[in-house]
Amino acid sequence: MSHRIFNFAAGPSAMPLPVLEEAAREMTNWKGRGLSILEMSHRSKDFVGIYRETVDMLKELYGISDDYEVMFLQGGGHLQFAMVPLNFIASGTANYAVNGVWSKKAFLEAQKLGKAQIAAQTENRAPTDDELNLSPDASYFYYCSNETVNGIRYPAIPTVGVKLISDMSSDFLSQSVPVDRFALIFAGAQKNFGPAGLTVVIARKELLGRTSDKTPTMLDYETYAKSESMYNTPPTFAIYMSNLVCHWLLKEGGIAEMQKRSIAKSSLLYKTIDESDGFYTNCVQKDCRSRMNVVFNLKNEALNEIFLDGAKSRNIGNIKGHRIVGGMRASIYNAVSMEAVEALADYMKKFAEDHA
Amino acid sequence: MSHRIFNFAAGPSAMPLPVLEEAAREMTNWKGRGLSILEMSHRSKDFVGIYRETVDMLKELYGISDDYEVMFLQGGGHLQFAMVPLNFIASGTANYAVNGVWSKKAFLEAQKLGKAQIAAQTENRAPTDDELNLSPDASYFYYCSNETVNGIRYPAIPTVGVKLISDMSSDFLSQSVPVDRFALIFAGAQKNFGPAGLTVVIARKELLGRTSDKTPTMLDYETYAKSESMYNTPPTFAIYMSNLVCHWLLKEGGIAEMQKRSIAKSSLLYKTIDESDGFYTNCVQKDCRSRMNVVFNLKNEALNEIFLDGAKSRNIGNIKGHRIVGGMRASIYNAVSMEAVEALADYMKKFAEDHA
Repeated sequence: MSHRIFNFAAGPSAMPLPVLEEAAREMTNWKGRGLSILEMSHRSKDFVGIYRETVDMLKELYGISDDYEVMFLQGGGHLQFAMVPLNFIASGTANYAVNGVWSKKAFLEAQKLGKAQIAAQTENRAPTDDELNLSPDASYFYYCSNETVNGIRYPAIPTVGVKLISDMSSDFLSQSVPVDRFALIFAGAQKNFGPAGLTVVIARKELLGRTSDKTPTMLDYETYAKSESMYNTPPTFAIYMSNLVCHWLLKEGGIAEMQKRSIAKSSLLYKTIDESDGFYTNCVQKDCRSRMNVVFNLKNEALNEIFLDGAKSRNIGNIKGHRIVGGMRASIYNAVSMEAVEALADYMKKFAEDHA
Repeated sequence: MSHRIFNFAAGPSAMPLPVLEEAAREMTNWKGRGLSILEMSHRSKDFVGIYRETVDMLKELYGISDDYEVMFLQGGGHLQFAMVPLNFIASGTANYAVNGVWSKKAFLEAQKLGKAQIAAQTENRAPTDDELNLSPDASYFYYCSNETVNGIRYPAIPTVGVKLISDMSSDFLSQSVPVDRFALIFAGAQKNFGPAGLTVVIARKELLGRTSDKTPTMLDYETYAKSESMYNTPPTFAIYMSNLVCHWLLKEGGIAEMQKRSIAKSSLLYKTIDESDGFYTNCVQKDCRSRMNVVFNLKNEALNEIFLDGAKSRNIGNIKGHRIVGGMRASIYNAVSMEAVEALADYMKKFAEDHA
């Protein structure tokens, strides 16, 4: 258990240690049943119990009403990029805000599969409501609440007169969300919720079941809604791990506490950047700075490798920026402790002093 | 570690105990790196190493040539039911042999997405080559090598003049297969390979990349072939577990040894059934009896619950038949030991004597 690093990975990312420890303990014999959770039928009473409890905990954490279906899928955000238009575009035009890598990918996939347009395009910030140019036949408006690669968050939920759909992969479970304003929310699990290979979808029930006959069965949300996500074998271990994460979250104080912590953690890092006299820079508009992914550059890029090596020697891992944008990125999801963030901030200050 | 049951689950199903034990040991700190395999970027050198080693071991186990791409996907067999026609049907007609629950589901999905016909339909056995009526414009012939629910296997690989595609979900890694006869083979991992949430696809490289522009990116095999299955985040933990399973398989003697064992294990159970004077029955034509899923009925169905309870008291679990067909089913995948099968056979004999 010892010698764990401070892990700032962007996803798959840090998980709560007690969750990993419990999974290890139960790995060969789950609750005395004589078999691993990995060896158990998804239709067994035990597994169905875990599944339902996980849905219930998510509903409790976010305050989700019974008008919504909570579903567990596979395929990650990228499969959602296809499922959203296939299920919601109908005869209208899909409208996308593009302000980073992930919203752009989602738009391109929608454009491939149907009629789609960009309602607003911004860099280094989220668009404001005033900037959104929705087409008259808009079937939905789509945005990515937190751009993981670019480190940009929406400071407020957009107000639009059409169905609202959001990719919340990287800020899921980190802040309160009025779910009833949305037609659909999805999130890849591998940031704040559980292992890679699981995707959560929260969708308003009355909007499902309107796909064309030519939609693959597994790309129709209705397939999952009608079967408690068990039309086929779900990723059982990933759901089990997410169940343990939900228990941990509730014990730690729920979403309100996570929101408080993420503000404190991100503020410390942005303060360190802003007070570095330009040694470190973050180019995101201040009110749109992500609380999950703090991206920054060293003014002197020649120091990048030295900075990364020094971090490693202090047990600080995975702070290299995404290969598309370069620089540095500290992802500070729920399982990343204040202690880890303080270690990084201290190191950044020391490094800036040493290389000023 | 003690008190493990004899687990005859059909999938998710028994895994080798040494694999589970290693996963438990490494759960909080993989090989001293200070983080769990669950917390590691899929683009890290360590994870890419695990991925490539797993592909290499599969190639070694089956003797797969470099003409084939080995890919790791999500979505299970059901997503393959859609991907196969979307990638291979083109302007022709898809041809399906339907001889059980799974081949029928695959056919229905192909019919939904394109032009498809049934080349042969049989019950309680696989069709022979003579019985296959392929359409003149057949783009491919599809069959399910082992029908998990019905307990039926193909005694030989069909010989057809068109592209051959097979669902080998439930007999994957249990017998030698001349892969070079196939255009594509797929298998859900949760029987012989690893955790639910992972699907293996082995496809002839030159046949990929022929989908229509309207195919969702994640439903195009080319997307995976071009990116080492990492166009997006793959199910990293499931791939890691499958890596451990491959190591175990190679250590145990590879596919030849698994084939030998599966013949011995299934023979013992069928012998027990056939020598029970009709107390137990199996209705599958003898040369088509599955070596993975031994289905049987008690002549007196009123004894079903007593039979299941008695099994439980002897640590024999998960032998209830699939809800569609009822009766009993013992799934005896690679991780189910001869000891477990002997315990079941002994119990069956004793039970038949006691209730004759």
